Amino acid sequence: MPRIDVNCDMGESFGRWTLGDDLGMMPYLTSVNIATGYHAGDPPTIRRTVAAAAERGLAIGAHLAFPDLMGFGRRRMIIPPRDLEDYCLYQLGALDAFVRAAGARLAHVKPHGALYAMASEDPALAATVARAVAKIDASLPLMLLNLATADAVAAEGVRLVPEAFPDLHYDGSGALIIEPVKLAWDPELVARRAVRMALEKRVTAQDGTELEIEAVSLCLHGDAPNGVETAAAVHRALADHGIGVVPLAEILAAADGEQP
Amino acid sequence: MPRIDVNCDMGESFGRWTLGDDLGMMPYLTSVNIATGYHAGDPPTIRRTVAAAAERGLAIGAHLAFPDLMGFGRRRMIIPPRDLEDYCLYQLGALDAFVRAAGARLAHVKPHGALYAMASEDPALAATVARAVAKIDASLPLMLLNLATADAVAAEGVRLVPEAFPDLHYDGSGALIIEPVKLAWDPELVARRAVRMALEKRVTAQDGTELEIEAVSLCLHGDAPNGVETAAAVHRALADHGIGVVPLAEILAAADGEQP
Amino acid sequence: MPRIDVNCDMGESFGRWTLGDDLGMMPYLTSVNIATGYHAGDPPTIRRTVAAAAERGLAIGAHLAFPDLMGFGRRRMIIPPRDLEDYCLYQLGALDAFVRAAGARLAHVKPHGALYAMASEDPALAATVARAVAKIDASLPLMLLNLATADAVAAEGVRLVPEAFPDLHYDGSGALIIEPVKLAWDPELVARRAVRMALEKRVTAQDGTELEIEAVSLCLHGDAPNGVETAAAVHRALADHGIGVVPLAEILAAADGEQP
Amino acid sequence: MPRIDVNCDMGESFGRWTLGDDLGMMPYLTSVNIATGYHAGDPPTIRRTVAAAAERGLAIGAHLAFPDLMGFGRRRMIIPPRDLEDYCLYQLGALDAFVRAAGARLAHVKPHGALYAMASEDPALAATVARAVAKIDASLPLMLLNLATADAVAAEGVRLVPEAFPDLHYDGSGALIIEPVKLAWDPELVARRAVRMALEKRVTAQDGTELEIEAVSLCLHGDAPNGVETAAAVHRALADHGIGVVPLAEILAAADGEQP
Repeated sequence: MPRIDVNCDMGESFGRWTLGDDLGMMPYLTSVNIATGYHAGDPPTIRRTVAAAAERGLAIGAHLAFPDLMGFGRRRMIIPPRDLEDYCLYQLGALDAFVRAAGARLAHVKPHGALYAMASEDPALAATVARAVAKIDASLPLMLLNLATADAVAAEGVRLVPEAFPDLHYDGSGALIIEPVKLAWDPELVARRAVRMALEKRVTAQDGTELEIEAVSLCLHGDAPNGVETAAAVHRALADHGIGVVPLAEILAAADGEQP
Repeated sequence: MPRIDVNCDMGESFGRWTLGDDLGMMPYLTSVNIATGYHAGDPPTIRRTVAAAAERGLAIGAHLAFPDLMGFGRRRMIIPPRDLEDYCLYQLGALDAFVRAAGARLAHVKPHGALYAMASEDPALAATVARAVAKIDASLPLMLLNLATADAVAAEGVRLVPEAFPDLHYDGSGALIIEPVKLAWDPELVARRAVRMALEKRVTAQDGTELEIEAVSLCLHGDAPNGVETAAAVHRALADHGIGVVPLAEILAAADGEQP
Repeated sequence: MPRIDVNCDMGESFGRWTLGDDLGMMPYLTSVNIATGYHAGDPPTIRRTVAAAAERGLAIGAHLAFPDLMGFGRRRMIIPPRDLEDYCLYQLGALDAFVRAAGARLAHVKPHGALYAMASEDPALAATVARAVAKIDASLPLMLLNLATADAVAAEGVRLVPEAFPDLHYDGSGALIIEPVKLAWDPELVARRAVRMALEKRVTAQDGTELEIEAVSLCLHGDAPNGVETAAAVHRALADHGIGVVPLAEILAAADGEQP
Repeated sequence: MPRIDVNCDMGESFGRWTLGDDLGMMPYLTSVNIATGYHAGDPPTIRRTVAAAAERGLAIGAHLAFPDLMGFGRRRMIIPPRDLEDYCLYQLGALDAFVRAAGARLAHVKPHGALYAMASEDPALAATVARAVAKIDASLPLMLLNLATADAVAAEGVRLVPEAFPDLHYDGSGALIIEPVKLAWDPELVARRAVRMALEKRVTAQDGTELEIEAVSLCLHGDAPNGVETAAAVHRALADHGIGVVPLAEILAAADGEQP
């Protein structure tokens, strides 16, 4: 049976401002990536989001970002690697304290926004993030868009896990196209894309290019106006096609077991 | 032999700005309190300061503050307890990641600036900080100015450790008077105050009041123009008077052992 | 004919986060108070909000706050007066540049959140804000909750204009009770309160106390779930009772003209 | 008689942290560029720096930066032009309020750090900054490293004024090499470079390349350990070579008058 993890970025509120329907999304997920304060996520938001995820037994990941609240971590910044590694470790430690206080354990790491895009393209940057991960726990998988930087990540002792985005457009090169404000997509279209990603490992880019993808996890967005409806549609479609939605750790353990 | 811990606030640089002569102070200390990013201490500063302290075997504490870079954490803020506890846990976790990455272990917690003053006066606030400490490790002692809030801290399962300030003025009520910019004090005067604090548990307030103090640790300041010279003078004077400068943990363990 | 100004806090979005339905509220207002970046309002939000208000000919005020994004400016901070005056002038200048670039002129100043509450209670703090106002333009009226600090404001050459809040509860002392997240109120209830405030200069506190108020302006909130509906109801009710909704400047000019 | 303006970045302290010897540098300058809060310069620092410059009759410019306190504005950020223009206008307005409150007038604009480097290379980015300048006062000259983006700036109705850096290294392409912490340079070497820049319009790059430069102003740095000594040496050397140190506005007015 084909299996896949389903993840969502969470805890992206900040103080008086709320974003996304985290609780609404949770029934359809196996993993959540929780903002750690640099692009979103003040400490009370972190605590509440961690608690809700831990109660439901969801795998909790750290959603690391550039220090850019005003730009929501979506703007590329050129930061010296040593400093960036420190920023990542700071965020990892801060989130980890809440996860442990909730009686759970950190399960993965996923960069956010511009850091995600850059670490998916640039081996040196991916290695920088991986070094911070290794400092806190080298067994935490690092989610990125593809395997382009997997060797650099592995050289730091960390495993890169690629994911795919059924509710975002890809350009012809396989990079993501981020909408400034997440628009509603047709839930059935997203569901078909998700199934195809899981079964065929393919997606059609916005310009028509057929892209081959690696995806151990699918990422959905709770800040779309119909994010929850879409997640439900994806959930049904995966089930209808006999695709198991299971935690990332289980998929990775099975993959390891299969290796000679 | 009378014994005392000597601590200093550290890692209070931020990005391009430097403050204090941390490395110069270290030879004269047993404990350091490292800023965690809310009033000072960007992640590279945290890393460097933790590394320097760990190399020298100094006990590393978290120096928790209000979120107020512009005011250096010195301005009183009225923050809902639940939020403040989260702010403290966030800072504790962030620092802890660097401490563990350096192969050391967090040894104590000390609030900074206005949070320190308020937690030394207000049992509810002290309890809030203590709850955050208990979430990360209830065995970490919490340093404050006196024992006024010790019961509230103990009710959260945390031990309050009082300290004294040879290089700061006290007012007649026993509260500290903070200079906006730390001025030079006569090193020999500070040394005499330190010895008296350690031996007699007394200090003379700025208005002449004789104050009785509890002090398991003495705090010195590295951001005074002659901070290092003063620390050296205190070090010599403590030795000359047969006062052992030993790590806080040792003093606390001995005190525990002595208790029936 | 009785006349009153109707104002609303605006531009309280920040980066990726949106708050309130500013455009929906504007048809029912004569004045808007635009956040200046310290509690909310990144520069693009300021520009868009100023432009929308200027197009509609609304009077634009500066909504000054403590530097506290994480707490939305709602937490009391004890800031040295000289520093606070500078914070106010900084915010005033920043907003003023956008207002002038939109071809409009700044019309009033209104503190936000905790700064508002404190400046409505404490003459020294009100004077501090007024000094900043006088530095940019002493003819700008300063909106506060009541006349308690009017003399201190006048001593700086600035006029205090009191306002009232039909959609917020007052406590028995006449202070506002702020909900962490603005809840929906019955629009007709708010409308009745607004009319009574305008005609009788009275409001019933949450504990039943009858309060006498001074109000040259009524403040409505666009971040309530039914803020626009409520504003429309208030607008209709004021018209139905023959109360003219006119810009603050007109009311003040008329009041000045009437004075001997 | 050859003439040149001499400028220095100022007001780069922030809260508890101080940087540079602003008052020490002032006797040797005609222009100062004052940080506006995005990379440095909290409002009290702005006020004090503006007051000191205004008292001495120095021309006051706005030193605009990316929103990056932790990186001191030295890290490249890719910000949408419309947002960046707003960030610039925000900073211009904030500083302008202090300048006007001090009875002076804003005299020029100079980007800082990464924004400076990028605006000196990229016409679109330079135009973005120039649009913000034009919104507050199109007659303010915009200082950049060279004339590469002068046409784009002029298209927005703003005049680009090139400057040169006697106490910084250039690379072979004519770009600046920024030291993370400003080191001491031999004052006489800097003075010789300054004279050569003013008289010959040439400088030798670090790799030996002879660069031709345009420079209406020379920029010196007050955050070098011997910044004041160096500025004094430059001042003497310019005088010894008969080079007039005069305000930028005078040089520009004279240049305009000479044009047919």
